[in-house]
Amino acid sequence: MATQVIVLNGGSSSGKSGISRCLQGVLPEPWLAVGVDTLIEAMPASMRESDGGIGFAADGGVSVGTRFRALEAAWIAGVAAMARAGAQVIVDEVFLGRAESQRRWEQALAGLEVLWVGVRCPAEVAAGRELARGDRIRGMAESQAEPVHQGVRYDLEVDTSRAESLDCALKIAAQLAR
Amino acid sequence: MATQVIVLNGGSSSGKSGISRCLQGVLPEPWLAVGVDTLIEAMPASMRESDGGIGFAADGGVSVGTRFRALEAAWIAGVAAMARAGAQVIVDEVFLGRAESQRRWEQALAGLEVLWVGVRCPAEVAAGRELARGDRIRGMAESQAEPVHQGVRYDLEVDTSRAESLDCALKIAAQLAR
Amino acid sequence: MATQVIVLNGGSSSGKSGISRCLQGVLPEPWLAVGVDTLIEAMPASMRESDGGIGFAADGGVSVGTRFRALEAAWIAGVAAMARAGAQVIVDEVFLGRAESQRRWEQALAGLEVLWVGVRCPAEVAAGRELARGDRIRGMAESQAEPVHQGVRYDLEVDTSRAESLDCALKIAAQLAR
Amino acid sequence: MATQVIVLNGGSSSGKSGISRCLQGVLPEPWLAVGVDTLIEAMPASMRESDGGIGFAADGGVSVGTRFRALEAAWIAGVAAMARAGAQVIVDEVFLGRAESQRRWEQALAGLEVLWVGVRCPAEVAAGRELARGDRIRGMAESQAEPVHQGVRYDLEVDTSRAESLDCALKIAAQLAR
Repeated sequence: MATQVIVLNGGSSSGKSGISRCLQGVLPEPWLAVGVDTLIEAMPASMRESDGGIGFAADGGVSVGTRFRALEAAWIAGVAAMARAGAQVIVDEVFLGRAESQRRWEQALAGLEVLWVGVRCPAEVAAGRELARGDRIRGMAESQAEPVHQGVRYDLEVDTSRAESLDCALKIAAQLAR
Repeated sequence: MATQVIVLNGGSSSGKSGISRCLQGVLPEPWLAVGVDTLIEAMPASMRESDGGIGFAADGGVSVGTRFRALEAAWIAGVAAMARAGAQVIVDEVFLGRAESQRRWEQALAGLEVLWVGVRCPAEVAAGRELARGDRIRGMAESQAEPVHQGVRYDLEVDTSRAESLDCALKIAAQLAR
Repeated sequence: MATQVIVLNGGSSSGKSGISRCLQGVLPEPWLAVGVDTLIEAMPASMRESDGGIGFAADGGVSVGTRFRALEAAWIAGVAAMARAGAQVIVDEVFLGRAESQRRWEQALAGLEVLWVGVRCPAEVAAGRELARGDRIRGMAESQAEPVHQGVRYDLEVDTSRAESLDCALKIAAQLAR
Repeated sequence: MATQVIVLNGGSSSGKSGISRCLQGVLPEPWLAVGVDTLIEAMPASMRESDGGIGFAADGGVSVGTRFRALEAAWIAGVAAMARAGAQVIVDEVFLGRAESQRRWEQALAGLEVLWVGVRCPAEVAAGRELARGDRIRGMAESQAEPVHQGVRYDLEVDTSRAESLDCALKIAAQLAR
């Protein structure tokens, strides 16, 4: 059965978005690319940094409230429905909840052919790339680099400190079930 | 039954996005806001201006191919699933296919409580706002202003040349079923 | 002597940028458009919300430090030099320092033909537009609407709550010395 | 005499912007960062892809007209004036005119202490990064990678395919005259 969903999990500034866009460029079929940034963009501005929403502390820490979790659950169900309706989807995610985050996606994607990809980048390299991006909030890259992979199971892992985004994408593309 | 989905339909530069963000700001519950721009953003860059994708002509005309339509159908199914999973959703759309576009959404949203809102803006005013936005492609505002409303049925219409975005949003909010 | 610089002064969300882009669209010659946002974008990320830099309080208040002022002075000198070198320049500014801000620009632009334009928008309308923009920080529009005009001398004033950006731009264009 | 201007020259997607932001992050003093993108952003939308303006061909080729050159000359004079007025400035440039482009900057910056830095990235790596950025126009990275360095004289060269942006920035910072 052909792969229907590619889930890329990695910390902030690990290089997921670049891989996602390269995958869209090299795969012969059109794939939709969505991710946690799409979700945050879709939420009310007031949900950022509010009680129950998602908070970004000055040190890069991220806290997630119950109202955020509720919208996120509906969002995940929607992305799964897109795949069931025939779209091939690349999901660009940050598993702040580690294995529990994966479990949430696994349940939603049940019955679909999913390729789970870990996008690794050493904390110090990711921190440098965060600086290179000029992000307003600093520290997310470093604090997320390791934890988001803990207890998460992958079909494939790539390390963006050792290969360009395009090379990582080609490695992932070669792994797709057809 | 409380309104679960608000569909805003209007041409480019008619002011839908501003109304959508104001609705998110004034409604007490958190609503997700998605739209055709979210979909285009999620598509491969190559789908823009390619055969089968979406094309933006120099005169502002937009053509949509079969591959775009297929991804769009899956996208619409996904947005409907988000609403069924409990998220309240504002959809910011341009019904290039007029009544046929509305029919596609109606089928996908069957069983959900939907408020259909027409966002009107006279062609010449929308054209001026397109200029004010500094868009790369000109002419979409004018060419879409009238056609996107033809044959479309609304619960409510607002005219952004006669009221600010916030006032339009408040008028829509007052109309929501609770 | 033909107008060489147009200075648009108004509070956040008063509509300066839209007018600036419309002016670029309707004026027969190519004009450069720069502004305080260009300057902030050019500064180190760390200058935002740091001692000596520019701070945006949660209530929309803006504080400006000595290091910001020093870079700003050099920036203003540079913009004046662009105009002296032959570029026609539209400056999109927020005179947080009121008459004192105007004095700084007047000194830098000495000898150049300048059109001073006040971009007015009632506080409550600007606040609604800030909401429509989905800005992260709220309150700037309201707190800046009146103060930025205090003691400032204009050749022309426009009110964006009573006219579209394009109409304001046409009114300004008609006032240019040739 | 302390370095007043750092000029980074390299092709599209070579990594100049990342280095520029890292320099702003690691240098103790606040430096302004401007570049050809700032200039293009400041120009009328109509100057992009028009006679006399700047044109981006479908194959990534860039053509520059006389009106663009005139505004660019004024822009360069303005950036030089910012440095003379005391701002330390990082310039992020693409020398499409090769040695002639450098000559234009050299004349404008006469008397200032300038560090000339070549930002190298092999054409195939830059092309992959262009894909990873999801740029609308493809081919610029590859077509510019080599030519922009021809006949240009540098104080220092870095290769972003062999070192992270931050490491390149640290190498440049170590070279600054104090």
